[in-house]
Amino acid sequence: MRNFTFYAPTKIVFGKETIPQIGEILAADGVSRVVMVLGGGSVFKNGVHAAVTASLDKHGVAFSEMDGVRSNPRLTKVREIIDRLRSEKAAAVLAVGGGSVFDTAKAAALGALHDGDVWDFFCGKAQPAKALPVYGVLTASGTSSEMNHTAVVTREEDESKWAVYSPLLFPKVSIIDPSVQATIPENQTVSGGIDAITHVLEAYFVDAPGLDFVQDYCETLVRAMMRRIPELVKNPADYEARAELAWCCTLAHNGMSNIGRPARGDFASHRIEHSVSAIFDVPHGTGLAIIMPAWMAYVCKNAEPLFERFAANVFGIRDGENRALRGIAALKDYFRSLGSPVALREVGVAQADLPRIADNAAKLAPLGAVRKIERDDILKILELAW
Amino acid sequence: MRNFTFYAPTKIVFGKETIPQIGEILAADGVSRVVMVLGGGSVFKNGVHAAVTASLDKHGVAFSEMDGVRSNPRLTKVREIIDRLRSEKAAAVLAVGGGSVFDTAKAAALGALHDGDVWDFFCGKAQPAKALPVYGVLTASGTSSEMNHTAVVTREEDESKWAVYSPLLFPKVSIIDPSVQATIPENQTVSGGIDAITHVLEAYFVDAPGLDFVQDYCETLVRAMMRRIPELVKNPADYEARAELAWCCTLAHNGMSNIGRPARGDFASHRIEHSVSAIFDVPHGTGLAIIMPAWMAYVCKNAEPLFERFAANVFGIRDGENRALRGIAALKDYFRSLGSPVALREVGVAQADLPRIADNAAKLAPLGAVRKIERDDILKILELAW
Repeated sequence: MRNFTFYAPTKIVFGKETIPQIGEILAADGVSRVVMVLGGGSVFKNGVHAAVTASLDKHGVAFSEMDGVRSNPRLTKVREIIDRLRSEKAAAVLAVGGGSVFDTAKAAALGALHDGDVWDFFCGKAQPAKALPVYGVLTASGTSSEMNHTAVVTREEDESKWAVYSPLLFPKVSIIDPSVQATIPENQTVSGGIDAITHVLEAYFVDAPGLDFVQDYCETLVRAMMRRIPELVKNPADYEARAELAWCCTLAHNGMSNIGRPARGDFASHRIEHSVSAIFDVPHGTGLAIIMPAWMAYVCKNAEPLFERFAANVFGIRDGENRALRGIAALKDYFRSLGSPVALREVGVAQADLPRIADNAAKLAPLGAVRKIERDDILKILELAW
Repeated sequence: MRNFTFYAPTKIVFGKETIPQIGEILAADGVSRVVMVLGGGSVFKNGVHAAVTASLDKHGVAFSEMDGVRSNPRLTKVREIIDRLRSEKAAAVLAVGGGSVFDTAKAAALGALHDGDVWDFFCGKAQPAKALPVYGVLTASGTSSEMNHTAVVTREEDESKWAVYSPLLFPKVSIIDPSVQATIPENQTVSGGIDAITHVLEAYFVDAPGLDFVQDYCETLVRAMMRRIPELVKNPADYEARAELAWCCTLAHNGMSNIGRPARGDFASHRIEHSVSAIFDVPHGTGLAIIMPAWMAYVCKNAEPLFERFAANVFGIRDGENRALRGIAALKDYFRSLGSPVALREVGVAQADLPRIADNAAKLAPLGAVRKIERDDILKILELAW
């Protein structure tokens, strides 16, 4: 086991009818004014917006609202929110939405106290030193942004979808009421679930001695999510399935899967996918359903025993030839069975677009830990994924 | 899944040669003076004391030392440390030792800022409102005190071994270097490991709908610890086994196993054992190896499917009659195979002592969640355990 630091200080308040606690939580922390960050409008239909604002009013927390955060969130919106945070002298940012809303709120929390451009943190020109506190009400599970130290944002002008990491970005408190997810679109449930599964797999394929328990944990988490997603495709209002999937999504990328590994995981698939979704605006989880199996096929010879273990313990493929590749094919079949696209051509990417995606992703190359991935490798993986 | 709050904000710094970070960690948090709480002296032999004091000196953190904390830690010692914290105007408490040292340091951190007797918090006369921050260097794994909100202390005059719980008691940072545990006595490795296994089982037998993943997680954790403890009995210096057992012990009682359950678990076995170890001063894990199988046999009819699941998934007992009881017998056999006593008579308890233990434990009755346990039930469990 490699040395590691584990730190996930976010308080999770989880369950039915928990959203009306938000005002009391903020007031108890002495927060009297927030900017609320919102997405595309579902919170106005499912009662979440009404519950949050009633609670803020009740507990005397002043607020203003910034809506319109979309999936693959944009730097322009982050900058608008920073301006609002400053002009309102807000004491905290309140994310009310899914992972994109959380990422946007977190980036804005960092930018509001930075004497310069917030993108400085994404491109490494500045290191986070302070941030406004972030609180959240989660309405769609997937990214684990509600319990991690990451924010991913796209700068539109050069299609860079990059990440910033800092302990300052852990939300103080995240409320997760799984029942409000009963009405999200099926493809959002699927895409969010696939994102979470791939978060675990990014860690899983980078092994080290002494990780027997951690690897078992990763498999347990993946199997649980793989059971629950199709249950929700059948019955979106199944509370127990929603709750278990939501909790697993939160755990999938809160650091627990990553401990004790070289580089904490691989993440080449995520980096490549970020270039796909930055340019073509496909949902992140959909992009991963396409890219990750291609990456797996490309690198599996570099860690064949692990890929065979995955095939055995997740798909029961224990005998015969080519177990690693058969496990990868089974994963792709599983994604397809959920109704997810599994090839770039299915989401409007032309073969002629692949070099442009490779160029974009190669700005961060070399990628990965299972195998070092350069621009040429990225292009080959994109061709496999096409 | 029942509603829950998950909160475990302690930063864990884990691995070889991490102890020299302690001075820098304290200095970065602005802590310039601590009282260091120590146990029986092993830290002077294994280099931990030297590494800690050198790091504190290097980073300008002033300190004084309070040693002599023993297993089943005593209220008298907590009070002495509170006096020292006050007279020194210490800014934090630094635990350097095992679970008893952490529990003592945590209780003292609470008492130092309380205008009254620290026992008020244990008997419910006062609610924790503030505490000094606690930092720690763990030298023996078992209790998970390094990452939880609990402190258990014995008041000598009436043999009450009671607990206090508060979010204020999470250590800010706990350093865990598993390599320093290579020289702890075998029975301490075994007792600590058994304590951690039973922490998971206290949660596991209190089920609710929607906990499939959490139950799988508990089994994964128990199986991992059951693999590692005998490896360490054979080779105490096996780093990977130490590291994995240490991490599993930390997770076993940091709240992860307890989410979504009624009452967060049962804990009748722990309560009864506290009375055994308060009066007879046996190691806590040894007491649990004795009490928990007896409790399991006493209550298993109240949750038979869960006890059968345990037998199947932990011991492979999937066919035939009496699977629940056979699983319990297998657990007892496992504890015995580690060299642990498994009966009260083996640790110097006479049958005539049982009513006194029952009276002591019944001060907190009714106990438990699988089945409500009153004084008469406690006596029957003690007879089974005798």
